[in-house]
Amino acid sequence: MNISNAKTPCLILDKSKMDNNISRMARGLKRLGVSHRPHLKTSKCTNVAEAVFGGQKGPITVSTLAEANYFFKAGFKDIMYAVGINPNKLDDVKSLLALGADLKIILDSPEVASLVTSYGTQNNIYIKTLIELNCDDHRAGLEPLDDETLKTAIILHEGKGTHFMGVMTHAGDSYNCISIKAIETMAEVERKCVVDCATFLNENGIPSPIVSVGSTPTALFAKDLTGVTEVRAGVYVFFDLFQAGVGSCKPEDIALSVLTTIISHKKSLNRIITDAGGMALSKDRGTGGQKIDRKYGLVCEAKSGKIIENFIVGDVSQEHGMVSSLKGDIDFSKYPIGSKLRILPNHACMTAAAHSQYHLLDKNSEEVTYIWQRCTGW
Amino acid sequence: MNISNAKTPCLILDKSKMDNNISRMARGLKRLGVSHRPHLKTSKCTNVAEAVFGGQKGPITVSTLAEANYFFKAGFKDIMYAVGINPNKLDDVKSLLALGADLKIILDSPEVASLVTSYGTQNNIYIKTLIELNCDDHRAGLEPLDDETLKTAIILHEGKGTHFMGVMTHAGDSYNCISIKAIETMAEVERKCVVDCATFLNENGIPSPIVSVGSTPTALFAKDLTGVTEVRAGVYVFFDLFQAGVGSCKPEDIALSVLTTIISHKKSLNRIITDAGGMALSKDRGTGGQKIDRKYGLVCEAKSGKIIENFIVGDVSQEHGMVSSLKGDIDFSKYPIGSKLRILPNHACMTAAAHSQYHLLDKNSEEVTYIWQRCTGW
Repeated sequence: MNISNAKTPCLILDKSKMDNNISRMARGLKRLGVSHRPHLKTSKCTNVAEAVFGGQKGPITVSTLAEANYFFKAGFKDIMYAVGINPNKLDDVKSLLALGADLKIILDSPEVASLVTSYGTQNNIYIKTLIELNCDDHRAGLEPLDDETLKTAIILHEGKGTHFMGVMTHAGDSYNCISIKAIETMAEVERKCVVDCATFLNENGIPSPIVSVGSTPTALFAKDLTGVTEVRAGVYVFFDLFQAGVGSCKPEDIALSVLTTIISHKKSLNRIITDAGGMALSKDRGTGGQKIDRKYGLVCEAKSGKIIENFIVGDVSQEHGMVSSLKGDIDFSKYPIGSKLRILPNHACMTAAAHSQYHLLDKNSEEVTYIWQRCTGW
Repeated sequence: MNISNAKTPCLILDKSKMDNNISRMARGLKRLGVSHRPHLKTSKCTNVAEAVFGGQKGPITVSTLAEANYFFKAGFKDIMYAVGINPNKLDDVKSLLALGADLKIILDSPEVASLVTSYGTQNNIYIKTLIELNCDDHRAGLEPLDDETLKTAIILHEGKGTHFMGVMTHAGDSYNCISIKAIETMAEVERKCVVDCATFLNENGIPSPIVSVGSTPTALFAKDLTGVTEVRAGVYVFFDLFQAGVGSCKPEDIALSVLTTIISHKKSLNRIITDAGGMALSKDRGTGGQKIDRKYGLVCEAKSGKIIENFIVGDVSQEHGMVSSLKGDIDFSKYPIGSKLRILPNHACMTAAAHSQYHLLDKNSEEVTYIWQRCTGW
């Protein structure tokens, strides 16, 4: 199918760009001598996962148990569910373990550690568990050298229902860095957090087989990951305008876009209206706090994917995108009603989530070569 | 199932509140003597549609052809697809007509009118079409008394492939009103726009059987709708924090919420972390430009649905919600890990779209009485 015949709005995935992004990360991590446990929360797609591993079924990270189930069914066994577990989800964890998944969960308190190990004991299972650490006050996690951390590790290590697997953190604050230098510093903060904790626990007789870090910016710009056993990067596979704003990539590297059709010319307002609104693009305004605000997305030619200078999706309603010009009058004759555009998203994870499938373009062609499905829900 | 056993994150729909919202709108429109063609883009759910019509299958409005198909299959025949048509979607329109749908589409240019009537002629069908009008520079639409409008109406009226059905507008700018007085004024602007146009076309020998307006604020506060034949209101069924900010409702009237589980206590940052992040709540920050910024949502007790004073979802990442206190220290002992909260959304349409189903609560009970499915995609 030619891209001009695709029903809109829909997701377009430029396979060449995705493959370049995958290679870049793989080369970087190889140079640093560290394993990769890619976070698949962005694509939620087994085909993308296979592209990341060159057809293999390597270790993965997920953000929901729905993803864990979905990827497990596709043959991915070694799965880290990287959102703090809560007791209500342990039955689902048990089901996955019973099916043969090598599932690892995370938590950040002695209370939850006790609940998990009790649950494991009562159900005659071993639940592989890591401690989530805080490296930047971004989200959750225990402090690396705190007594609470040791207490939690002891519970998991000594408890009959758990295997203590190690420590992990996510330098979410790297998203707020405004220079590559700052990202490099953040990467070292992230590394030091987990390595210090693993050393501290080891000194107390508790080994940490896994010492895990992960964020796309720190994974790309870390200078040294000594002591780290694995990296969990995710959004780099597609990249997005937010990551371009952080400095992780150029806008031209973004592999994901939303194909849309022009439905109206509002000449008096110098505005083109398309059928990709907040529902298709998401309402994520992550670039709003960055040096260059991309509003609801950058606009590209549909076939070439080339960015159209000075065009922007300035506003959206549920099913309408309002494309405006940052400079000068729009030449409406170049963009007739019924013709198509592509929109680069602020945040690939959120934009992809609104859609059920990807339309693959390969080797700069206009032909959709494959439709790849994705997983949704929780 | 008791609400405490529901898997999180998930949508909760308080049926009593929804029924009150439905009754309020029905009473108001009855007093104004005008028909209702509810916009179902918020719920995308046949059960909600049936609640709106008391079990009947009245005329409806939709925002996607996927919704049109979904509601048609459930017995709703009279459907207005209220997003400007583009030529690529006409095959889908034809399919729906062939199945027996009384589908109406909209457009806002002579060019598209010519394409639609040619398509109808070539395919031996009559496509019922309305003209979209601009009343507030919010989005798309022709000017009510413009020559282009008359030209478009003549094409649709005289073309063999189309039935001209009338005029419609949406006062999207009512969302920016900062007083009830301003909404009343906007409602009159909206009414005058369509009625003036219908009169103008009638004077030129073209009757407009449908004269349609629609937005929740204007539908609720219009003083007079003389000349209008139908109103298309949508989000009022659930309401949301944005509508509360506009003045359409109180936060206590909001029928939709996201049930979430507490997964971490970050005491050093006076923060509770839950499993409802940007994916479950949406990243819509509509209240950000209002008098009271609700950040990513107001926090309620899970069982009673009562709003917890001074709590707010201050930030989100993909699968984490960060609940903070606007005033004073959080009493963490009252909100243990594993316990649940409910979050009132900024924008019900966007939040509901992230989920595949609603969990119904009835008569202030904690019991989930039904699971209602919803439609997704395009």
